[in-house]
Amino acid sequence: MIIVIQCKDQVGLVAAISGVLAKQQLNIIAMREHVDTQESRFYMRLQIEQSTNEQALALEMQTVLPTDAVITINPVPQKKIVVLVTKEYHCLADILIRHYFGTFGASVLAVIGNHATLQDICARFDVPFTLVSHEGKTKTEFEQHITRIVKDYKPDYIVLAKFMRILSPQFVAEFPMKLINIHHSFLPAFVGANPYKQAFERGVKLIGATAHFVTNDLDEGPIIAQQIIPVNHSLNAADMMKAGKEVETSVLAKALRLVFEDRVFVYQNKTVVFD
Amino acid sequence: MIIVIQCKDQVGLVAAISGVLAKQQLNIIAMREHVDTQESRFYMRLQIEQSTNEQALALEMQTVLPTDAVITINPVPQKKIVVLVTKEYHCLADILIRHYFGTFGASVLAVIGNHATLQDICARFDVPFTLVSHEGKTKTEFEQHITRIVKDYKPDYIVLAKFMRILSPQFVAEFPMKLINIHHSFLPAFVGANPYKQAFERGVKLIGATAHFVTNDLDEGPIIAQQIIPVNHSLNAADMMKAGKEVETSVLAKALRLVFEDRVFVYQNKTVVFD
Amino acid sequence: MIIVIQCKDQVGLVAAISGVLAKQQLNIIAMREHVDTQESRFYMRLQIEQSTNEQALALEMQTVLPTDAVITINPVPQKKIVVLVTKEYHCLADILIRHYFGTFGASVLAVIGNHATLQDICARFDVPFTLVSHEGKTKTEFEQHITRIVKDYKPDYIVLAKFMRILSPQFVAEFPMKLINIHHSFLPAFVGANPYKQAFERGVKLIGATAHFVTNDLDEGPIIAQQIIPVNHSLNAADMMKAGKEVETSVLAKALRLVFEDRVFVYQNKTVVFD
Amino acid sequence: MIIVIQCKDQVGLVAAISGVLAKQQLNIIAMREHVDTQESRFYMRLQIEQSTNEQALALEMQTVLPTDAVITINPVPQKKIVVLVTKEYHCLADILIRHYFGTFGASVLAVIGNHATLQDICARFDVPFTLVSHEGKTKTEFEQHITRIVKDYKPDYIVLAKFMRILSPQFVAEFPMKLINIHHSFLPAFVGANPYKQAFERGVKLIGATAHFVTNDLDEGPIIAQQIIPVNHSLNAADMMKAGKEVETSVLAKALRLVFEDRVFVYQNKTVVFD
Repeated sequence: MIIVIQCKDQVGLVAAISGVLAKQQLNIIAMREHVDTQESRFYMRLQIEQSTNEQALALEMQTVLPTDAVITINPVPQKKIVVLVTKEYHCLADILIRHYFGTFGASVLAVIGNHATLQDICARFDVPFTLVSHEGKTKTEFEQHITRIVKDYKPDYIVLAKFMRILSPQFVAEFPMKLINIHHSFLPAFVGANPYKQAFERGVKLIGATAHFVTNDLDEGPIIAQQIIPVNHSLNAADMMKAGKEVETSVLAKALRLVFEDRVFVYQNKTVVFD
Repeated sequence: MIIVIQCKDQVGLVAAISGVLAKQQLNIIAMREHVDTQESRFYMRLQIEQSTNEQALALEMQTVLPTDAVITINPVPQKKIVVLVTKEYHCLADILIRHYFGTFGASVLAVIGNHATLQDICARFDVPFTLVSHEGKTKTEFEQHITRIVKDYKPDYIVLAKFMRILSPQFVAEFPMKLINIHHSFLPAFVGANPYKQAFERGVKLIGATAHFVTNDLDEGPIIAQQIIPVNHSLNAADMMKAGKEVETSVLAKALRLVFEDRVFVYQNKTVVFD
Repeated sequence: MIIVIQCKDQVGLVAAISGVLAKQQLNIIAMREHVDTQESRFYMRLQIEQSTNEQALALEMQTVLPTDAVITINPVPQKKIVVLVTKEYHCLADILIRHYFGTFGASVLAVIGNHATLQDICARFDVPFTLVSHEGKTKTEFEQHITRIVKDYKPDYIVLAKFMRILSPQFVAEFPMKLINIHHSFLPAFVGANPYKQAFERGVKLIGATAHFVTNDLDEGPIIAQQIIPVNHSLNAADMMKAGKEVETSVLAKALRLVFEDRVFVYQNKTVVFD
Repeated sequence: MIIVIQCKDQVGLVAAISGVLAKQQLNIIAMREHVDTQESRFYMRLQIEQSTNEQALALEMQTVLPTDAVITINPVPQKKIVVLVTKEYHCLADILIRHYFGTFGASVLAVIGNHATLQDICARFDVPFTLVSHEGKTKTEFEQHITRIVKDYKPDYIVLAKFMRILSPQFVAEFPMKLINIHHSFLPAFVGANPYKQAFERGVKLIGATAHFVTNDLDEGPIIAQQIIPVNHSLNAADMMKAGKEVETSVLAKALRLVFEDRVFVYQNKTVVFD
């Protein structure tokens, strides 16, 4: 059983929480706690050996915690996602493979692409693919079309697996803290388009990728995970892009695992990650 | 205030510990906990905002914990160490620099060398250096001489900063879990002498270093920290040794910081490290 | 055009080689050279802007180089491989995905498994899968069966993508320096079976994987690539195995890319890798 | 003997260069070459087993290379540097230690500080320290004072080892491609002041450091080396700064080694680094 709690910090929170558990003879296998002293916020993730009546436990927890406490017991154990793609295969294929072999930790309900490029790979894994072209549509029409399809699936998260369209605030507002993007640079370096070209021209010695929640400010949402790889003068922009795909795949996989295991807390524009 | 606890695992430990703290209105700033389910052992490190009467708190904790519990409140805040060296300077110099600038987190009482090579650098930092040559002595005489000097200083830890003599079980038994060594390979690869030569001959693509507590079995004690760096065919054994010194310095510094901040628990032949 | 040369070292080799190229107005885009002074061996990899008559060029090169020189011009540009698997999917799936999208750099002729587990994934990618069970066969019969199938495909390399059978010297001798294995530890640590269990029991702080050519000595062949990831006390042996699969996939992919791009030279039990 | 060459690219350069060497029976131990096809530039670094008359060799090389070729044979084997500091010790101390033990690869002529904080550590290593306070001086006066002192020492490079003053274009113009700075972020992320505070507020999961040549555009000069370390929510800005010092020390040491060994070529705003 997993319990995650976020609330205002105050003295005695751990005692209150663990007291409730001890009274029910529930054994804590793993516990992670963080107090953000600057924001005076308390974060906790507990792994409990046994199971119990979740609703009753949540109610009892509520009585001993601050009124703003958000307590989730056994958050949806198997998350459901929809994936948005354009043409690049690497992140989607990694998701499909893990999904097929039962190690992804989430259910892939559907893939939506604005190009047909990745339709066949979805078919090979029996995952529904819907083509929603952006051509001949206004941005609003395009996004409303996608919104309609996504909402029908009722996913827990929407994964932008190299979806190369900039999203409007209206679209983002429909799915607050449900949109997870992979950006092809170690943010905040190289915000925006063509980060590998920017990286090549700047002559950097490392390139990276960033998985983050999407907010209204492009490439400015809460960061979940980042990784880099070393590069040198022998790589041109195309080589960097190729090398970067490996780290994009890896960092998105890591971020999704952390989110699916309820190890990521968001507060304001940052994350607490119990990895 | 730092509290570290190690004991047999049982239901209710966190509630018991945090209950004692809450009753005294003590606020937990940071908490790390680990249960080794295989060994059924409980480890906890707490950082408390306020201070209090340590002895009283420890006694009250004892009443709510298993009888085997080892509770340490505010473990010696500034550890004292003696450093053993031979001729290589890199680890010792790093220690002396941090010590001189007050960022080492421990007090360097003395340096003992079996060669005079590093006497001058100690003098430049006003740290006592004692030459104890192994020449013309039996191993037993040599070690007894060192033991005598070390014991006079009553250090919390003895750091083997590239001390190139193999220690007898008798010597090790004098300082159980107080001897910290830096081994110049990523153990358990390349146990024993000349690991860089071994690494070169095997044609490995990475070399590393390991900081560990010393036990009777050579290079087999509990590992505190390990790091590696990539190498390739262009490095010969001497180049690898040179590159390795950087990682040795870095990994020993990290291990010592972790130990000095009471983040390392030892049980049987392994460590729990709350880094 | 790619040219790779390996021979005994002597003065004037670079002048001789580049002289031949300059005379034909061939432009060197990238050049990597290594002299192993201990073994007195010369290694070179050249990338040439233009193309030319390969046979004529090789013959002319031969006239200016030592008689032991092995000169390969445009080595098979698209290597052909056969993959041997047991039950674990991660390395095979990564190969199939890259192969399907045309970024693998080699042609996957067939997959042979001693279990049927991975038959379906191969079918989904239209890659022939042959089941060769080891049950009810002697080791010799089993290996002869595989040898027969492999030889029919005439592959350039045989990739052991988590093939969990120990190979006999007879089998290895059939495919000298053509067998590439992924071992689930940073060799030479944890040779043999169950490296993750060994790693867990030793309490190491990093685990890794090694891609290497297979020779008669188990886990002792020339190393192509190695990578590690940090671990800590919170991972048990099963967690380490899970984390290790990511690094196994990554390091095998890297090693195969290097081999397919003719960047790996083998001499005695080591490699020169121009990455 | 080390030979470094930079010139416009054309067919036959390698043949021309190695032909000159072969004629003199000079053996190439290590050779690195890079052609920037976009800029059509040729870079080469050669290590030769034997020694010879340098001037004669350079003249002969000149006759076979393009007129713009910059050929340096045995570039000053032991570089001379002046170090500029403010109050932070970590980079300077690392330099002083390596210098004292003869492994720095350059001669430290003097240290100039705008605070007296690091005077004592220099004294302990018998390295001259000059205090040039910026207080009560205009920026121009301050920089002219430093310029005068630096020029008297005729250093090959001026190392800004955490010199916390922004330099004017006039000062930079005095020492083109001789000023090496360590910036406390992985550029181009977090240009300017307080990068650790910026990093903390952005909630990044990795922080880094960049060693670069200084040009007129603040933090925009050619990058020599970069490294990062992972961070998480448990570090505040001060913790990040502390952790960052380790990587700053390491990356500056690496960059200086590369520069001192003549492994770094600058062209326009980028570097070619044969590491």
